[in-house]
Amino acid sequence: MLVDGTPYQTIWFRPAEPETVWIIDQRHLPFQFIEEPLRSVEEVAVAIEEMHVRGAGCIGATAGYGMYLASLAAAKTDDFDRVLKTSAKRLKNTRPTAINLSWAVDRQLGAIVHGNSNDDRVQIALQTAQDIAKEDVQACQNIGQYGLALIQEIAARKPAAEPVNILTHCNAGWLAFVDYGSATAPIYAAHDSGIPVHVWVDETRPRNQGARLTAWELASHGVPHTVIPDNAGGHLMQHGDVDLVITGTDRTTYTGDVANKIGTYLKALAAKDNDVPFYVALPSSTFDWKTRDGVKEIPIEERHPSEVTHISGVADGLNVEDEMAIRLVPSTSPAANPAFDVTPSRLITALITERGICKASASSIRNLFPEQVENNF
Amino acid sequence: MLVDGTPYQTIWFRPAEPETVWIIDQRHLPFQFIEEPLRSVEEVAVAIEEMHVRGAGCIGATAGYGMYLASLAAAKTDDFDRVLKTSAKRLKNTRPTAINLSWAVDRQLGAIVHGNSNDDRVQIALQTAQDIAKEDVQACQNIGQYGLALIQEIAARKPAAEPVNILTHCNAGWLAFVDYGSATAPIYAAHDSGIPVHVWVDETRPRNQGARLTAWELASHGVPHTVIPDNAGGHLMQHGDVDLVITGTDRTTYTGDVANKIGTYLKALAAKDNDVPFYVALPSSTFDWKTRDGVKEIPIEERHPSEVTHISGVADGLNVEDEMAIRLVPSTSPAANPAFDVTPSRLITALITERGICKASASSIRNLFPEQVENNF
Repeated sequence: MLVDGTPYQTIWFRPAEPETVWIIDQRHLPFQFIEEPLRSVEEVAVAIEEMHVRGAGCIGATAGYGMYLASLAAAKTDDFDRVLKTSAKRLKNTRPTAINLSWAVDRQLGAIVHGNSNDDRVQIALQTAQDIAKEDVQACQNIGQYGLALIQEIAARKPAAEPVNILTHCNAGWLAFVDYGSATAPIYAAHDSGIPVHVWVDETRPRNQGARLTAWELASHGVPHTVIPDNAGGHLMQHGDVDLVITGTDRTTYTGDVANKIGTYLKALAAKDNDVPFYVALPSSTFDWKTRDGVKEIPIEERHPSEVTHISGVADGLNVEDEMAIRLVPSTSPAANPAFDVTPSRLITALITERGICKASASSIRNLFPEQVENNF
Repeated sequence: MLVDGTPYQTIWFRPAEPETVWIIDQRHLPFQFIEEPLRSVEEVAVAIEEMHVRGAGCIGATAGYGMYLASLAAAKTDDFDRVLKTSAKRLKNTRPTAINLSWAVDRQLGAIVHGNSNDDRVQIALQTAQDIAKEDVQACQNIGQYGLALIQEIAARKPAAEPVNILTHCNAGWLAFVDYGSATAPIYAAHDSGIPVHVWVDETRPRNQGARLTAWELASHGVPHTVIPDNAGGHLMQHGDVDLVITGTDRTTYTGDVANKIGTYLKALAAKDNDVPFYVALPSSTFDWKTRDGVKEIPIEERHPSEVTHISGVADGLNVEDEMAIRLVPSTSPAANPAFDVTPSRLITALITERGICKASASSIRNLFPEQVENNF
């Protein structure tokens, strides 16, 4: 998508610099736009762990390129396999809830093994990393088109001047993928096709990915939106101010349970209580084909309490480079920081995937992805 | 309650200074404890409007003393009634959702009218202000005892070493009343009687009354607690980590609908979905005996967007006097800030009042407060 008129993706590779992968260091958005070079698997691991990059597809694509950098390093040693395996383990341990991470790493391991020489393995790793990124872009484009139809339907039922009000939580925008985003793809598609849309952007405590990233993205693209505290969504739904909810997901079970940013479950409950459709948009790489019960089985990452006790921003009148952290919670009080929750499938109207829309149920998901039955059941 | 070993209430009057009422300027907590003198009805109005004081009972008591200061000023003019009425209007307009505000002002108007002289009216106003404050303290003590029984019941069902986990939203602590609090009164009573309790403190965006005030209160009193983002409560309930929820309320209809800090409704939905009992604690001064449908009829205060786009705290290493505001939301994005939502009675297990516990239904409330039927129906 465009940043100040220049088209960007969240991760890129220049053949002239074969030992470098570039990302946007998203920690500084919306205040600063900083490009960051990654030159080793350890730098990639830290970038994922410390959330220079975040979001399902973006983590997957970054891990894919991380395995390419790992193969480069492995090729310089006398034990390619061992180095590659250690790197894979390091990457997988960075974010336990994100399924795209292990999916991308495993795909790389499965591909690289077919190389006949170290050079060949490195070439396969690069090609696979590029494929993962390209497929992510294509999947998000498709999600955009399928989701667009849902928004068009709602727009057709409303007076022409009234925007379709869409609530979203966290950032499942292009910054969370390689381009377009999952939850935002239908929104960008609707806006670009002339349907008036307005987005309620949950600020998404504690890391404020909504207020920082989704708001920045939507503003950059010119989509009307309003940032709200996470607490406000239920009230807006009670008063008819939300036509539909679209969120992303970090992991979706084959039965349709959705692990997503902490607080998603609360919005799904409110949507159900107010008959507001609640959609989850995802490329199929986010499906966990082995897990049945989301609440019981998906490991939930517990992040550092300092993300709750402190927050960072920029004081009015200071420069954006002077972003600073302040303490919000008295130092005498501990804090807890579970990063995700699980929304049971019963609360989800439908899933929007790159192959189309399906119910959040094992049978409906299986119908859309029949090859997974052979692979996993 | 104790502050550094000294017993405090949220508002006090010293006979030696008859033209002054003292409050704690709660805007600076938890970083600074500042006592503030109020010497005119306008100072009282600003203190309520700009939330030097907040919370149902504390607003009511402050408004009561505001009417005393108004009567002092009125007695110095040749049109007592006009000045008193203007003051009443000024006070009532400060916070539209808080029912205790108009309740206290109307009680003063009804009392002062019986005075035979200006001096007499001033004396009645002082007595009424003191009565309102005293009754608030007594009501909270009673709520504490009735709520204690509920916590005892749960504690009896748990292994002895396991604390009763109580989730609360916003601050319905002693800072929100004159003393003890509503939602916190049962917690303090349980803790003081030796029952192990642990409180999940919702930070309560956007003004963080939970992280700032409830956490500070509980830490000061030595009650174990953990601050969590508002998004986390549903996840904790899904995993059995919440035994009960107790919140306060800013206005409760005679049918049992509860207006409280934005986000309360989301927690009530999660409690219902996970069979966690959801209690609302209130002195009966918080009942709105004229309003039937909370969602449709209770006006919801929309506060300034800057409370969402900016937040204040103290940078590590700086002095607490250097509390500062930082921007969280890009300046290109607007924000909305509804301050309350309404939790429908169907989601509420019971109300804890100074007269006992009742269902959140018109008939059950009427049984406990039969005199209101005569007054209002």
